[in-house]
Amino acid sequence: MQFTSEQRFDDGVLERAFTLGEIPGLLWTPGSVAAPAPLILVGHPGGLPTMYPRLAARARHAAAEGFAAATIELPGSGDRPRIAAAEQARADLLRALRAGEPVADEIVDRLVLPLVDEAVPEWQAALDALLALPGIGGPVGYSGGVISLGVRLAVVEPRISAALLFAGSFVPRSIVEEARRVSIPLQVLLQWDDEGNDRQQALDLFDAFGSEQKTLHANMGGHTGVPWFEGDAGNRFFARHLK
Amino acid sequence: MQFTSEQRFDDGVLERAFTLGEIPGLLWTPGSVAAPAPLILVGHPGGLPTMYPRLAARARHAAAEGFAAATIELPGSGDRPRIAAAEQARADLLRALRAGEPVADEIVDRLVLPLVDEAVPEWQAALDALLALPGIGGPVGYSGGVISLGVRLAVVEPRISAALLFAGSFVPRSIVEEARRVSIPLQVLLQWDDEGNDRQQALDLFDAFGSEQKTLHANMGGHTGVPWFEGDAGNRFFARHLK
Repeated sequence: MQFTSEQRFDDGVLERAFTLGEIPGLLWTPGSVAAPAPLILVGHPGGLPTMYPRLAARARHAAAEGFAAATIELPGSGDRPRIAAAEQARADLLRALRAGEPVADEIVDRLVLPLVDEAVPEWQAALDALLALPGIGGPVGYSGGVISLGVRLAVVEPRISAALLFAGSFVPRSIVEEARRVSIPLQVLLQWDDEGNDRQQALDLFDAFGSEQKTLHANMGGHTGVPWFEGDAGNRFFARHLK
Repeated sequence: MQFTSEQRFDDGVLERAFTLGEIPGLLWTPGSVAAPAPLILVGHPGGLPTMYPRLAARARHAAAEGFAAATIELPGSGDRPRIAAAEQARADLLRALRAGEPVADEIVDRLVLPLVDEAVPEWQAALDALLALPGIGGPVGYSGGVISLGVRLAVVEPRISAALLFAGSFVPRSIVEEARRVSIPLQVLLQWDDEGNDRQQALDLFDAFGSEQKTLHANMGGHTGVPWFEGDAGNRFFARHLK
């Protein structure tokens, strides 16, 4: 892990860009902490340069309340080399959506499953590197989408103690089955009137999670219109489970 | 409105029992407030003597954060005279539930609609009396079940500015239609694994609400197992809309 740039904001939060091998990433840490800060891995749909404003707002909000927050680029997105099969699956998905057709399960599988398979070891490697830094400790939370990545990490990565998942993307049926094996506390965000999302599928996924403690927050405002107060609610969720 | 007893708790909250004509009620007010306190009407399924511990806990939590909170007994419940038709409807409902049969719409209508028709003017009269007391001002919120009573009050009573509704009771189809006319900010609590509740009906009701700002919080824990942190979330919801 190599830091490539940094800036400190008025509230003391330090933002650092890094590379982990060929993978770009970002790390936000609180201005001052007495003990090692719990770490939140910030998930996103891919494309850090485009996602930066929303990601940075979420991460800085968390860092201002004493969490470290970090993210890395997804395989095939942002400044990373494209993956031909993923590009084909994305094109097939868009064609189905534009034609107003139902999206076939096999397209969702081709789009999401290889991405999850490739991303999980990268996020685990990032976790190794981040937890080795001074000032960052456990426990660890995952916050955001891609929800299928969050599900897989919650199943296979024992260092993740709680997850705030965004139900806003296509979910392969096999991931719904994996969700039954998730047992950590969850908070799931659903945009009730999300045009691009299958609400019933999101409710089925929430139902499938094996966790004893799971909470669904559904709001209005469309795909990108998550209300500001969910940022506070997310911080309180992680404060309950990571502090 | 006549006060019949009072007690002050260590945190300064004052609890007063009152009667409004023949209707018993309870009022909780903060220990000290600079300005008139916003008022939360605390809904319940009927039977103040039985419901008292849970109601008082919710109300005192709100009063400790600067809200006035009040409730009155429902028609036919607690120490009020029984209503023959309501008792019959309740017996029919219990018989259907015990037999594992689906509950017919006409039973739900007989149980809930006369209750709502009779209760609404009583809660409005309580509102008149409460808002005339020193130290209590608007705006007003409604918090709790019976959800059908909350829906009707949200439609007909313009002094109610926000509602936190508990989706835990049978809802007549005509109330789902009324819900389309609700426009105030809502937070709806649903116990996802509530044995006695029809989850799909609760989701349909949430979908029907006309409010631009509506949030659903679904949790695990069964009918009476609403997690403690929803008390905090409720206070924050009312702080956003009543303060």
